[in-house]
Amino acid sequence: MTQTSLIHPVILCGGSGTRLWPASRKACPKPFLPLTDERTLFQQALDRVADPDTFAEPIVVAGKQHVDLIEGQSGAGANINLIVEPAARNTAPAIGLAAALLDPDAIMLVCPSDHHIADADAFRSAAKAGAALARQGYLVALGIAPTGPETGYGYIKRGDELEGGFAIERFVEKPNLERAKEYLASGSYSWNGGIFVMRAGQVLEELESHRERISQALRRSVEMGRQVGSQFHPDAEAFSSIEGDSIDYAVMENTGSAAMVPVDMGWSDIGTWSALQDALAGADRSNTAPNNADLVDCKNVLVVSDGPRVSAVGLEDICIIVDGDEVLVTTRDGAQKVGKLPGAQDQ
Amino acid sequence: MTQTSLIHPVILCGGSGTRLWPASRKACPKPFLPLTDERTLFQQALDRVADPDTFAEPIVVAGKQHVDLIEGQSGAGANINLIVEPAARNTAPAIGLAAALLDPDAIMLVCPSDHHIADADAFRSAAKAGAALARQGYLVALGIAPTGPETGYGYIKRGDELEGGFAIERFVEKPNLERAKEYLASGSYSWNGGIFVMRAGQVLEELESHRERISQALRRSVEMGRQVGSQFHPDAEAFSSIEGDSIDYAVMENTGSAAMVPVDMGWSDIGTWSALQDALAGADRSNTAPNNADLVDCKNVLVVSDGPRVSAVGLEDICIIVDGDEVLVTTRDGAQKVGKLPGAQDQ
Repeated sequence: MTQTSLIHPVILCGGSGTRLWPASRKACPKPFLPLTDERTLFQQALDRVADPDTFAEPIVVAGKQHVDLIEGQSGAGANINLIVEPAARNTAPAIGLAAALLDPDAIMLVCPSDHHIADADAFRSAAKAGAALARQGYLVALGIAPTGPETGYGYIKRGDELEGGFAIERFVEKPNLERAKEYLASGSYSWNGGIFVMRAGQVLEELESHRERISQALRRSVEMGRQVGSQFHPDAEAFSSIEGDSIDYAVMENTGSAAMVPVDMGWSDIGTWSALQDALAGADRSNTAPNNADLVDCKNVLVVSDGPRVSAVGLEDICIIVDGDEVLVTTRDGAQKVGKLPGAQDQ
Repeated sequence: MTQTSLIHPVILCGGSGTRLWPASRKACPKPFLPLTDERTLFQQALDRVADPDTFAEPIVVAGKQHVDLIEGQSGAGANINLIVEPAARNTAPAIGLAAALLDPDAIMLVCPSDHHIADADAFRSAAKAGAALARQGYLVALGIAPTGPETGYGYIKRGDELEGGFAIERFVEKPNLERAKEYLASGSYSWNGGIFVMRAGQVLEELESHRERISQALRRSVEMGRQVGSQFHPDAEAFSSIEGDSIDYAVMENTGSAAMVPVDMGWSDIGTWSALQDALAGADRSNTAPNNADLVDCKNVLVVSDGPRVSAVGLEDICIIVDGDEVLVTTRDGAQKVGKLPGAQDQ
């Protein structure tokens, strides 16, 4: 399933989105919710790479519990190749599986399925620039233009200029607020949004160099795996034996060939209800609510409801989520704690 | 149905409680909700006057749409006399109907059915003191000890001391905050909670003097009315022709015989969700929520739910009400506006 002139989208569906409970639940987590649009985040991820002149058929990597959602949301006649993970082992093994099934020269565009990107054209331009660098032997991260001193994201510091991008000087873990402000002021840091462009063969070589046990287990998972229609099932025992690791730790921070392409594309990871409110309301802090909601004397309020009418009086900076038999009301500041609530934990 | 040595409770069920929407709805308004206890406010009103050594069988005055609720909540074998109003015409006609059906010498204790009284003994003592004054020819209001400079209640200024009470110097409409503070500081003002003790015949005489048309229409309503079992149905056409008026305006502010009995009984009219929170939480501003609710970093939060779990993070001074297909979230200050919400209006 490789056409070397095209970019091969690899869409990762591992995000659980517990901080978006109660809308995001184990049975239907964040990627499969229509949070920012009538299309779900996963569908939007497919839509962004739908142009057959640029992109090959996408590879979707997901757990078996979400296969039905993926097939249902992909639409009739969709040509997606699905890799069904027997267990969740973080991004390095997921990306390694896709790489192993592609031609070594194939250029992969690795994308989370649960992020919001307002400017899809900017995304595609950056992906193409990344592909050009990847063909030259770079492992490329898209470096997202920071819009504030966020403490919830990792940062990438740019180094020497390359054609269409920059070398990466270093990756930085989630900083404290003071550091985040310094990074923002310096102008040489971008957010790491987990979007990568890389040659399939090179990913496997780097895994072999830096994570030999993952590499070996991956090879067994693929050799003993089986293709069923458009679904590839890695060997469950071999894959499950892998110790989970992120592509950032396993490869990007160890390679000598890390590069980045800066991009300003209205990106958000929609990590919390307040992040969703920001993505939907923009700078004017307007309320965001369904048509049947009644908000009186409210400012910067988010309402999400799967049916019941929500009425609110006098609120500011509050998110109200109604889903099935659960009602969540949180301040914007409290939204980070939602994933720790008993309701989010005891699913 | 008169025993002159006993006090005759007259329980008025006309309150709509629109500010307690969405729990209070037209089909099951505030008196019939278990807001402060497992017993509904109406049931608690019955419970307070259940002692047969002091009280005669109660007379309940209500609209026909609530007859089933009243019969269901009164319990099997309850001896209540029900006056079914063909139309809502405020308190003067409702009390006049009860007076017309009692012996002229009967002492009536008129009580709203939708208030909260923490200290029922204090209530009964005040009722007895009021009955003694009523037998001497006074129309008696219970004067509730104010606990703050409330602007939502009418006030009563006490005058000369009587045996077991005071003459009323004047009634005062809902004051502004400055006035309310003056009243509170002066020590000679009480809240008017709409609880009255009066001789039935005297009520009718006063109505005749001050509201002749109401009096005449009431007489026709009763003469042409019919008793069906324990229910009395006033003539619909005659009763509906009455222009609604309160007992305060029609009688209490016009009579020369107004008296008051001061009482401190933990009273609240539970007019709003914040008033319910005050009645339930007391001075320590604790959260008030059902067992299945999860409140994290919350202070002085009220949760009322008819089923769904409510989770909340970071809230202060917020009321969350879940009822059927409606969810209300309001600040305590906003609670006054709940009755004007589209949901509360469009029932």
